[in-house]
Amino acid sequence: MNGRPGPEARSAFVHFCEITTRWMDNDAYRHVNNVVYYSFFDTAVNRHLIEQGLLDIENSPAVGLVVENQCRYFNSLAFPDKVTVGIRVSHIGTSSIKYELGIFRNDENLESAHGNFVHVYVDRESNSPVPLPPPVRAAVAALQAR
Amino acid sequence: MNGRPGPEARSAFVHFCEITTRWMDNDAYRHVNNVVYYSFFDTAVNRHLIEQGLLDIENSPAVGLVVENQCRYFNSLAFPDKVTVGIRVSHIGTSSIKYELGIFRNDENLESAHGNFVHVYVDRESNSPVPLPPPVRAAVAALQAR
Amino acid sequence: MNGRPGPEARSAFVHFCEITTRWMDNDAYRHVNNVVYYSFFDTAVNRHLIEQGLLDIENSPAVGLVVENQCRYFNSLAFPDKVTVGIRVSHIGTSSIKYELGIFRNDENLESAHGNFVHVYVDRESNSPVPLPPPVRAAVAALQAR
Amino acid sequence: MNGRPGPEARSAFVHFCEITTRWMDNDAYRHVNNVVYYSFFDTAVNRHLIEQGLLDIENSPAVGLVVENQCRYFNSLAFPDKVTVGIRVSHIGTSSIKYELGIFRNDENLESAHGNFVHVYVDRESNSPVPLPPPVRAAVAALQAR
Repeated sequence: MNGRPGPEARSAFVHFCEITTRWMDNDAYRHVNNVVYYSFFDTAVNRHLIEQGLLDIENSPAVGLVVENQCRYFNSLAFPDKVTVGIRVSHIGTSSIKYELGIFRNDENLESAHGNFVHVYVDRESNSPVPLPPPVRAAVAALQAR
Repeated sequence: MNGRPGPEARSAFVHFCEITTRWMDNDAYRHVNNVVYYSFFDTAVNRHLIEQGLLDIENSPAVGLVVENQCRYFNSLAFPDKVTVGIRVSHIGTSSIKYELGIFRNDENLESAHGNFVHVYVDRESNSPVPLPPPVRAAVAALQAR
Repeated sequence: MNGRPGPEARSAFVHFCEITTRWMDNDAYRHVNNVVYYSFFDTAVNRHLIEQGLLDIENSPAVGLVVENQCRYFNSLAFPDKVTVGIRVSHIGTSSIKYELGIFRNDENLESAHGNFVHVYVDRESNSPVPLPPPVRAAVAALQAR
Repeated sequence: MNGRPGPEARSAFVHFCEITTRWMDNDAYRHVNNVVYYSFFDTAVNRHLIEQGLLDIENSPAVGLVVENQCRYFNSLAFPDKVTVGIRVSHIGTSSIKYELGIFRNDENLESAHGNFVHVYVDRESNSPVPLPPPVRAAVAALQAR
């Protein structure tokens, strides 16, 4: 565990998304189960893409699929905590985007967990990688940390 | 299906709770899966009880267990819709409370689904029914429709 | 609570489906959360339909949507219990099917919970009710209790 | 994406656990959502610990908390696929265990996804790290690849 990066502050992120926790998020240890954090990541990024008009679940010809993800946990959350997800983009490739995500509990300034995931854009019919659609590329460029 | 009650309006409920939908709430038919609505019910009622100081997940000696529940679905929801849950109490017994719940999509006035559930209060050690704690009884009395 | 029907035995059901519980099914009270039972219902019925060749998630022109469901809970389950879902069909309408479901814990003969739900078949494009496809009607007729 | 390790075979794992997929595991893209894989990891390891008598959810004085986890996805799964989780232990520290997990679809020999997670054992009251209980240490030593 030694040497791993510590928690970042809200200022390290560019866009924020609020999520409410649910009763069943708490597991038998009475904290939000680690699995649920990955749902927060998917939710924050896809909500942003949809709100920007960059993802239409039914009709977009190219969509981002998660090919890898990870998370480090610093402090526990528990229902009914409110969660804010901070988003920034750390890498933009030909067909891929790497998102960094911070999970903030209630009004805290330091993240409770830090995750990342890589979206690879694929053609919905063939499932083959395609170049990022230009509007997606422009939008995620705006999510890179200054 | 004929003859079943239609959707109620927000004015039929006493207390409201906002919940954010999640990417994975959508199932293969691209609507919030019916299962998830029950999570909205649990979340709304337990959040209210916790905020009123009436439920301490770790320490309350008596807690409410769901012994039956049901839901009728009128219209579908889909991520990233926002959900408001309306709550009212329709019956208070010696050991039990019946909650009625309305699920409202975004700013709509008519519910998209209507559910109810019965909480029976049990002693946490013995799992036997106990009379409702007086502060719980008082609080849920305030949730009865006028 | 008085007068409600008690638990049924395995012999009251026609088809059975095994489901494994998951760590996160347990909620803060350390039992499988009531919400999860509805996932067992959906899973058992849709798995049966798919295995019978009666549902193709991508391509079936008519699909069954849940318009109402309910559950009564008799005994709790907890991970890592194994679950067997018993299925029978109690009503077949022009466009609808009512399923009755029993949830059996490990090797027990009496159900731990009893649920039911109504599927209404709709045209996938228009979302309007359609008559049950004849192969579906024949298959669910075989699920009626003798 | 280049240079990342490819999928491993079943022979790279020591213990196996079968899990059934659920209808709601499929997300709007009609594949098992990436979040759900983490539930498979938790389930497989904790089920093994419970079956070995090494974890009592209510009473164990020391329990393993997930402090980091990650997953790489090679091929998609979809309900009603059956999942086998392969488990091996890649590192045993004073207070921590690192598990490697392979997700196998139906009867396939190459994994569809590969994950890992680190459990840190903590005292349940103080939440402070404690040395691995000796029976846990012995059991997970047996999960190291030969």
